[in-house]
Amino acid sequence: MTTFEDIRKLIGDLPGPDLQAQRQAQIREPRLTKPAGALGRLEHLAEWLCAWQGRHPPRVERISARVFAGNHGVARRGVSAYPAEVTAQMVANFEAGGGAINQLCRVFDVEFAILPLDIDRPTGDFTEQAAMDEDACAAAFAAGYDAVPPAIDLLCVGEMGIANTTAAAALACALCGGTAAEWTGPGTGVGAAALAKKAAVVEAAVGLHRQAGADGLELLRRLGGRELAAMAGAIVAARLQRVPVVLDGYVCTAAAAVLTALRGDALDHCQVGHVSAEPGHRRLLQHLGLRPLLDLEMRLGEGSGAVLAAALVKAAAACHAGMATFEDAKVSTGPT
Amino acid sequence: MTTFEDIRKLIGDLPGPDLQAQRQAQIREPRLTKPAGALGRLEHLAEWLCAWQGRHPPRVERISARVFAGNHGVARRGVSAYPAEVTAQMVANFEAGGGAINQLCRVFDVEFAILPLDIDRPTGDFTEQAAMDEDACAAAFAAGYDAVPPAIDLLCVGEMGIANTTAAAALACALCGGTAAEWTGPGTGVGAAALAKKAAVVEAAVGLHRQAGADGLELLRRLGGRELAAMAGAIVAARLQRVPVVLDGYVCTAAAAVLTALRGDALDHCQVGHVSAEPGHRRLLQHLGLRPLLDLEMRLGEGSGAVLAAALVKAAAACHAGMATFEDAKVSTGPT
Repeated sequence: MTTFEDIRKLIGDLPGPDLQAQRQAQIREPRLTKPAGALGRLEHLAEWLCAWQGRHPPRVERISARVFAGNHGVARRGVSAYPAEVTAQMVANFEAGGGAINQLCRVFDVEFAILPLDIDRPTGDFTEQAAMDEDACAAAFAAGYDAVPPAIDLLCVGEMGIANTTAAAALACALCGGTAAEWTGPGTGVGAAALAKKAAVVEAAVGLHRQAGADGLELLRRLGGRELAAMAGAIVAARLQRVPVVLDGYVCTAAAAVLTALRGDALDHCQVGHVSAEPGHRRLLQHLGLRPLLDLEMRLGEGSGAVLAAALVKAAAACHAGMATFEDAKVSTGPT
Repeated sequence: MTTFEDIRKLIGDLPGPDLQAQRQAQIREPRLTKPAGALGRLEHLAEWLCAWQGRHPPRVERISARVFAGNHGVARRGVSAYPAEVTAQMVANFEAGGGAINQLCRVFDVEFAILPLDIDRPTGDFTEQAAMDEDACAAAFAAGYDAVPPAIDLLCVGEMGIANTTAAAALACALCGGTAAEWTGPGTGVGAAALAKKAAVVEAAVGLHRQAGADGLELLRRLGGRELAAMAGAIVAARLQRVPVVLDGYVCTAAAAVLTALRGDALDHCQVGHVSAEPGHRRLLQHLGLRPLLDLEMRLGEGSGAVLAAALVKAAAACHAGMATFEDAKVSTGPT
């Protein structure tokens, strides 16, 4: 998988849902000891798990989180409240167990790995050139693809990279249309003046790379970053391994949106863990027709929203698999 | 605690928040390795835990769920899709570990108990008489009060009782005003004709007991039920033991609303776990000025939404207590 052609072939061949396992879930659900529909979205999650795990009952025991880190040439444009060296510092913090994501993974028994991608070599400044050439973008995609562990039940993907909400905004704007300002938010917390500058940077980048059209991989290469390419690769690998995925926030969803540009159903095995306080995320989810599971005003990245939501997915599987049926429990099903 | 006068005194003497512990949380929060505010509502949860546990850092290790079951005279009016014997059948199901709440408690390591309250003796039909006399109501309150285990970190409260969304609607309508139809929903899933009948039952009950005025305990006695009184008792006991509480759905919130009628800040140590698909719940939360943590279209009761949300509260405590500070992790705090 060293060229875009390889990746296009891979995505073209992605498997669909297991309709038989999904059907088994639909048959069991109304037999469980609760009013029909009373578990709301948990019921849909259980059915979705069956469809994409290819088994019934669903199982969510082994959950892994993969967080990819990258550095961005555009960081030099002053688009973040933090300097670029924070990416490496936070990678070290994750390795030492001090990040929010470390605590969340510990609480929910999620296996965690942080994968820094050439963070000493930032991508090109996409206001002047493409962020990556095809080799670099395909290599980052492959790194994500290879990072999905075998025999897991659920994958959470996340990222860390100073300036990467600028990349997310540029990608979202190029993929979905609209103005740069509509897609640009405060990220780590820039003020009003810096926010206007950030939107101008996004506008310039989208204009410079307009020739890429709507080709997801070309846009990923020009406006993305290594951690975005890696997340896309991990999402694709999970589909092939029949591992459902929980996406995180704005940057993660922008990377995932690249895949839908290549194939409309490419994210059907994914849930959006949460909607970020970064305003572009809600807009992007609406554009993609995706509903988040949580809305807690978080905007941290690191896979934090994905891991929180994975707990809900695990709960959904446990209810579906473990609850008694009306027959088993001798509970009346209605006023007959 | 055998009279309403005892209960009124207890509620009058409830302790307030620990402002010193809360302040310690406010001091630590901006030092943690994340942009300010990036954990959104999790940050507020950590601070709230400190205020109501009376300690810093917060700790959420030992979580208990208490689910109270009761039967209702008004069930004879055909207000539920299920017959009244389902209450006892579901109690047996919970005892055998077959309910949704059992699976959720297992997933999130929450200690569980179901407490049936005289379920072979339904309360009075409140379209004709008060549901309970003062002795019965105070006894149910005391049963909930005594059900909170010692030395826990967080309490989830829930209920089971055929026809109890009718009681919730009547209580909410009497406490908050508006029409019966605005507060009445399908509950376990009644159709349109039964829904209209249910609203008429609620309207008749509220009219019959109008003389109770806005007195929370009088309304609880007349329009509530044993499991509602018990939830109110458990919420009060938790406050006294410095145990924060996660509320569940419509019936639970209606019971809690009785307490705010007695004392405006009586629920400050409580979070609302989720907003139910039962439409009256969203309305009641707006009336009380409370924001739910989850919105997953659930409408099961049993404490199910509370236990799911307790996982978020636990995550909030873990992040606040366990994350590295900028100083510890040698992470730059800004572009100085």
